Amino acid sequence: MHAGARHLKIIEGNELATHSQEHMMSGTAQIGVTGLAVMGRNLARNFARNGFTVAVHNRTAARTRALVEEFGSEGSFVAAESAEEFVAALERPRRLVIMVKAGEPTDAVIEEFAPLLEEGDVIIDGGNAHFADTRRREKELRERGIHFVGVGISGGEEGALHGPSIMPGGSSQSYESLGPLLEKIAAKAPDGTPTVAHIGPDGAGHFVKMVHNGIEYADMQLIAEAYHLLRSVAGYSPARIAETFRTWNTGRLDSYLIEITAEVLAHTDAATGKPFVDIVTDQAEQKGTGRWTVQIALDLGVPVSGIAEAVFARSVSGHEELRAASRGLPGPVPAALDEAEAERFAARVEQALYASKIVSYTQGFHQIQAGSEEYGWDVDLGSVASLWRAGCIIRAAFLDRIRGAYDARPELPSLLSDKGFADEIGAAQDDWREVVATAARQGVPTPGFAASLAYYDALRAERLPAALTQGQRDFFGAHTYRRTDREGSFHTLWGGDRSEVSTG
Amino acid sequence: MHAGARHLKIIEGNELATHSQEHMMSGTAQIGVTGLAVMGRNLARNFARNGFTVAVHNRTAARTRALVEEFGSEGSFVAAESAEEFVAALERPRRLVIMVKAGEPTDAVIEEFAPLLEEGDVIIDGGNAHFADTRRREKELRERGIHFVGVGISGGEEGALHGPSIMPGGSSQSYESLGPLLEKIAAKAPDGTPTVAHIGPDGAGHFVKMVHNGIEYADMQLIAEAYHLLRSVAGYSPARIAETFRTWNTGRLDSYLIEITAEVLAHTDAATGKPFVDIVTDQAEQKGTGRWTVQIALDLGVPVSGIAEAVFARSVSGHEELRAASRGLPGPVPAALDEAEAERFAARVEQALYASKIVSYTQGFHQIQAGSEEYGWDVDLGSVASLWRAGCIIRAAFLDRIRGAYDARPELPSLLSDKGFADEIGAAQDDWREVVATAARQGVPTPGFAASLAYYDALRAERLPAALTQGQRDFFGAHTYRRTDREGSFHTLWGGDRSEVSTG
Repeated sequence: MHAGARHLKIIEGNELATHSQEHMMSGTAQIGVTGLAVMGRNLARNFARNGFTVAVHNRTAARTRALVEEFGSEGSFVAAESAEEFVAALERPRRLVIMVKAGEPTDAVIEEFAPLLEEGDVIIDGGNAHFADTRRREKELRERGIHFVGVGISGGEEGALHGPSIMPGGSSQSYESLGPLLEKIAAKAPDGTPTVAHIGPDGAGHFVKMVHNGIEYADMQLIAEAYHLLRSVAGYSPARIAETFRTWNTGRLDSYLIEITAEVLAHTDAATGKPFVDIVTDQAEQKGTGRWTVQIALDLGVPVSGIAEAVFARSVSGHEELRAASRGLPGPVPAALDEAEAERFAARVEQALYASKIVSYTQGFHQIQAGSEEYGWDVDLGSVASLWRAGCIIRAAFLDRIRGAYDARPELPSLLSDKGFADEIGAAQDDWREVVATAARQGVPTPGFAASLAYYDALRAERLPAALTQGQRDFFGAHTYRRTDREGSFHTLWGGDRSEVSTG
Repeated sequence: MHAGARHLKIIEGNELATHSQEHMMSGTAQIGVTGLAVMGRNLARNFARNGFTVAVHNRTAARTRALVEEFGSEGSFVAAESAEEFVAALERPRRLVIMVKAGEPTDAVIEEFAPLLEEGDVIIDGGNAHFADTRRREKELRERGIHFVGVGISGGEEGALHGPSIMPGGSSQSYESLGPLLEKIAAKAPDGTPTVAHIGPDGAGHFVKMVHNGIEYADMQLIAEAYHLLRSVAGYSPARIAETFRTWNTGRLDSYLIEITAEVLAHTDAATGKPFVDIVTDQAEQKGTGRWTVQIALDLGVPVSGIAEAVFARSVSGHEELRAASRGLPGPVPAALDEAEAERFAARVEQALYASKIVSYTQGFHQIQAGSEEYGWDVDLGSVASLWRAGCIIRAAFLDRIRGAYDARPELPSLLSDKGFADEIGAAQDDWREVVATAARQGVPTPGFAASLAYYDALRAERLPAALTQGQRDFFGAHTYRRTDREGSFHTLWGGDRSEVSTG
């Protein structure tokens, strides 16, 4: 045992350590968690339940005590009241998980702890940081000899406790020290693999987590559109739609989000006896990672129209005044379908949902690939798909297919280039087109389905009207164009005799 | 005449002033332009042609000399070789226009000149600065007693020379000094009004110019989609489509962009004898203001799906590898239309184009309104529409309609709330739906048309499936929801007995 641990008491059950510690001594806790709101608390419990000794610390010590009082019997905790005590409780090299709000609170906690640490220690940020902040922090701490690991953690409170999907960035060296612990607490994919892997240097982990959330927005929007169509066009009740989603959940759409959609739709509001979904205000909120995903995609030049439409759909829903002012605008009233037509339509919606989902993931993985190239992360896309198979919100059977596609061809230019997905989308496209056309005709907004289909049709187009756009740009701004039949760039003298000049 | 002008020579014709000046003396030039690339040069000539004495300066003096040699006969120029000479040439309070690259070059030039200026002098940045940079610079210079005016200038090289659309931000006081000059050089709307007005404090001018460019992206994308449909579905040749656009240009779509579309489509490539549009590489480039518009809209929570799809469409077109890998993907082959069907379809495309255009402008003006509220600019939306009527790329008869709508009801929640536009979009919607449906079925990508229609249908929806999205968020993240029938926020114990708890 290290000398510094002599004042520490390992807590078993309800006992509390209150002795003060000497700075720079090392303790016995393999991991520490500071910031004990629900995510931090559950993560700490997850470590403890998996046999690790966990130092716990919170700005207000009451929360630390509460954790140990309530959950101390689950494993081995060391309660620390001060930053110094917390650091001293950790074995070296220290592994210290920060679970506080993204932004300034994270910087403040880093500044509190970094001076107490030694070369080779590892600070882990498990919050939802912007990857650019993570890159900045990693660089600053690297210069001070400290490893900084931005970790994306998905799965919410339940995931944190029972097994999240974990996306660590930072140095390879830090992962050697940290990986074995994370593999223990991560969720396990159906084949038993822990849903954690080293994503890449500095901000790679938070970047991939951000794109995960962007894809989550798209998935949810596509499900919302499918629901809306089944309700408005097929004329199904929420209960029947719940049944439909339950059936879909036994097929290729098998996923956590489809499963909980059925649960939400099947739920009846106790107060009114109405379907729960009908008493909820139809204004969706957002916390920002979907927005970030689109903003960064724009910087990288990656089209993520499915994610963007999902973010916009939430914004539209929340603009109450605008909606109130627009409710009287004219539109068609969907025609009633008979039972057989409704069933046929529902089957088509499943095809449209699946095809649109392939496009969302195609766009999301394109963004990860582009980010990886931009920042030199060398991200393994198959590994990303693999660790999203369990623990996180978008977990789905589908992700094992994506893992397979990238494992077979790591250089795949796009998911749509995978033969399996191309075949499926090819088989789905007639129904997909029919659903988008029906929605347009019947006045049901399906921005996600429509954007995904337009992306598909643009990518496969022999020629795009972008040639006209370039011609216009040359006309009004002399921005030049390239020719299909020779190298170089050219400008037409639009204001003159319209002859062509070579510009480079 | 001020004392400091005694060493200066007013240039008439080809003569050059080469005498050195005394610092802090004031000259006779009413305005100065530094940075004499094509935009700066043309702007300086525009001032001179309108009777102002213009001090001109460039980092490399050769360009200054070249301007005066070539265009000195157009008016009264004062050529300055040094920063000190330039400042001394200006009457007080000085008005000094910077026409250099956005970003660091702008900061460098400001830092070069600011120390030479006096309280009350005005620095004008006529570049394409990000409005956040303009806000920062305005604040810094205000603290030093100098007015800083970020001015959006649209119309390209030709506009700068013959009359641009001008969007100045900055203090009201600076506009008192600057406005009369800008009104002289601005374009004139059909009713004779100069296309310039004080937009609002600090970054308001550059913000509005940014949204102008975003709308320009959307306009161009919608035109590209209309062209693509006429070509692929109606089976029209580029020459015939040029004719169609010429006809449209005599109606409600009357605009500069429709006009030049006809010019570009009618043009034949001399080298090959083919339609020009067919020899241009179909990859559209972009310079960044479209991307900024979407990124800022996301920060403001404003759905700008039409602009976003336009930016994405350019990105898609440029991803050559992705397109090469996707060209074999299955899709329908558009069925041939007979002449009468083709004409009917073309008429529908006009309706779809017009309706989608209304939506793009609705979204763009919503963004300006939201920016104005966020930053306290108090922007007059009718005035913005008014000054886009001439001089700028999106100039159109349509903008006079928008001006009218906002002038009649400045508190209009949205352009779609204007009875005139609502009536038109109502009359267009059947055709619009038919075009979007046809594009989906025939495999022609129309992301802009489809996104605009989805926006319209979402805004007018009685209920949106956002209620399901909120239900899902409450299920997996305890994010709570509001109820339609009572105040407060609520959470359902999804993992428990599914009873509802009030959370605030």
